[in-house]
Amino acid sequence: MSKSFNDILERVKTCSTKKVAVAVAQDDALLEAVKAAKERGIADSILVGDADKITEIAATLNMNLSDYEIIDVKDITEAALTAVKLVHDGKADMYMKGLIDTKGFLKSVLDKEVGLRSGKPLSHVCVFDIKGMDHLLFLTDVAFMTYPTLEDKVAIINNTVEICHACGIDNPKVAPLAAVEVVNEKMPVTVEAAELTKMNEDGRITGCIVDGPLSYDLATCPEAAKHKGATGRKIVGDADVLLFPDIHAGNITYKALVHNSDSINGNLITGTKAPVILTSRSDSFEVKVNSLALGAVVAEAMKTNR
Amino acid sequence: MSKSFNDILERVKTCSTKKVAVAVAQDDALLEAVKAAKERGIADSILVGDADKITEIAATLNMNLSDYEIIDVKDITEAALTAVKLVHDGKADMYMKGLIDTKGFLKSVLDKEVGLRSGKPLSHVCVFDIKGMDHLLFLTDVAFMTYPTLEDKVAIINNTVEICHACGIDNPKVAPLAAVEVVNEKMPVTVEAAELTKMNEDGRITGCIVDGPLSYDLATCPEAAKHKGATGRKIVGDADVLLFPDIHAGNITYKALVHNSDSINGNLITGTKAPVILTSRSDSFEVKVNSLALGAVVAEAMKTNR
Repeated sequence: MSKSFNDILERVKTCSTKKVAVAVAQDDALLEAVKAAKERGIADSILVGDADKITEIAATLNMNLSDYEIIDVKDITEAALTAVKLVHDGKADMYMKGLIDTKGFLKSVLDKEVGLRSGKPLSHVCVFDIKGMDHLLFLTDVAFMTYPTLEDKVAIINNTVEICHACGIDNPKVAPLAAVEVVNEKMPVTVEAAELTKMNEDGRITGCIVDGPLSYDLATCPEAAKHKGATGRKIVGDADVLLFPDIHAGNITYKALVHNSDSINGNLITGTKAPVILTSRSDSFEVKVNSLALGAVVAEAMKTNR
Repeated sequence: MSKSFNDILERVKTCSTKKVAVAVAQDDALLEAVKAAKERGIADSILVGDADKITEIAATLNMNLSDYEIIDVKDITEAALTAVKLVHDGKADMYMKGLIDTKGFLKSVLDKEVGLRSGKPLSHVCVFDIKGMDHLLFLTDVAFMTYPTLEDKVAIINNTVEICHACGIDNPKVAPLAAVEVVNEKMPVTVEAAELTKMNEDGRITGCIVDGPLSYDLATCPEAAKHKGATGRKIVGDADVLLFPDIHAGNITYKALVHNSDSINGNLITGTKAPVILTSRSDSFEVKVNSLALGAVVAEAMKTNR
C-alpha cells in the first residue's frame, strides 16, 4: 500500500517501464520534469512537437535527446492529436500536456477517433502527501468538474477509487465533505453526502467505504474525531479520499494545502482510458514528476486489469 | 497595524482593561482560558453560572476566584441572559460562550431586550496568523452564514472590515474567492465577486479595497500572483480578507489551515453591538485566548467610535 510519494516511487520500480506521450513538448519546465522522470526510472517519453525548439531547449538542460523519441509536428493541434493517438494505439501508456492551452489539450483527450474517452465522465484527482499524516490523501474534484450532481459524484468516486486501488489502497475510505457532519435539509450537500453513503451500503458504490457528510477535521484528524466523540462512524479521521461539494470548495482547499502546509502532491485526470497528466506551468517541478510517477502506477494497474 | 497575534497582544496593552461576561462559566477549558486572559492582562471576567461548580473547577486550576466577579445563576438560559445583559448594559465589554449549546447562546445574543443586536446581519470572522505570511489573514464566513446572497456578502465585508480597522489595518484588501480568477457566467460566485468589486469602486462598499474573483493562490501568495502575471489587479497575493463563496468552502479551508498549516487563530462573531466570542469546546486553549485578545481590541475600537 502506498502511504507516501516515496512508496509510489518504490511501486513504480516494480512496474514495467512506462512511456509518456507529450503534447507540444517545447517547454523548458516540462522537459526538465520529463528528463527527471527518465533519470529516476519513472517513465520514458515520446516528445511530440516542434523538434527544432525541443532540441534548442534540451541543450540548455543538458538533456541527451538520443534517449527520447521525438516526433516533429509543428502545428499545435496536430501535435496533440499525434501524441494522444500514440496512447490510444497503445504505443505509449500515458498522455501529458505541454505548451498547449488546457482547452486544446482536453479537446485532444476527448477526440472521438484518437482520444482517450472511456465512456465515463472525466474528473480530476490531486494526491497529497502531507507531513504528519500517515497516509496519502486524495482530493477530488478540485480542478475539473464545477458543480457535480449526485450522479457526477458517483462517477468521481468511482474514478478516484480506481486510482486508489492502483496505489495499493484496496478499500479506501471516501469522505464526502461539508461544513458539518450531520444531515441538514437546508444544506443540499449534506443530503447528497448521506445518499452517497447509502449507495455504498446498498452496493451501488463498491470498492470503497463511503461515510458522509463529514467535516474536514472529522475526516482527516483522528484526534479531532476522538475529541468530538464521533461514535458509530466508519471514518474517524482516517479518510483516504476527500470528495468536495464543488470546485470552489475543492480548489480553495487544494491551494491552501499547496501554499500553507508542508506537503507535496501530484495529480491526474481520471475517467480516461489511460492516465492523463494535466499539470500547469505554475505547478512545481516536483508536482510534475510526482504526477508522472502516479501516472506510471495507474497505467500499470490499467494494463493488468485490461 | 497588527501583523500577528503578538501585535494584537501588544495592542491590547494600549487599551483600558476590558471585561468579558461569560455565559454558563462552569467549564474547565473555558476557565483555563479566562484565567490566562486575566494573567496576561487581556481581559477581566464576570463569570455567570453555577457558582458551586465554578468554585469546584477553579480549585483544580489553582484559580484565585477573588480576582473574578461571580454571579450565581444555575439555570442555563437565565445565566446566558444575565451575562449578555451585562454587556448590553455596558457593565462588560464582550460576551463569551461557556457550557451552553450554540443555539441557546445565539438566542441570548439575539434577545430583543437584553441582547446585542445592532440591526446588521451577524457573521463570523476567523483571524489567522500563518507562519511565513507577513500579515494576518481574516477568513469569512467559515462558520455562521451558510449560503450568503450578494447582499449578505456586502454585510459580511462590512462586518469584517470593521474588525480589520480595529486591528489597525486601515484599508484592508478583500478578496472574494473562487476556483478561478476570471468571471464565468456558469459560476455565479465569480459574477457576484465582480459585482462586489464594482460596488467597492462605486463607493457602495467603503473602507477597504475589494478585488475579485480571485483564486486562493493569487489572493494570498505574491509569488503565485507574480508567476501567473496578474497584471492590473489590486490584490497580488496580499489580501487581508478572504471572502468565501459559502460555508462549505469556508469551513473546509479553515479546518485544513487549522490542522495542516503552522498557524494560530482566533475568532469572533461580528455584526453585534459588542464582540461575541463563540469558541467551541474543541477549540484549543490558544484559540480561546487569542479570541479574547481580538475581542478586547475590537471592544476598544467600538468604544472609541461610539
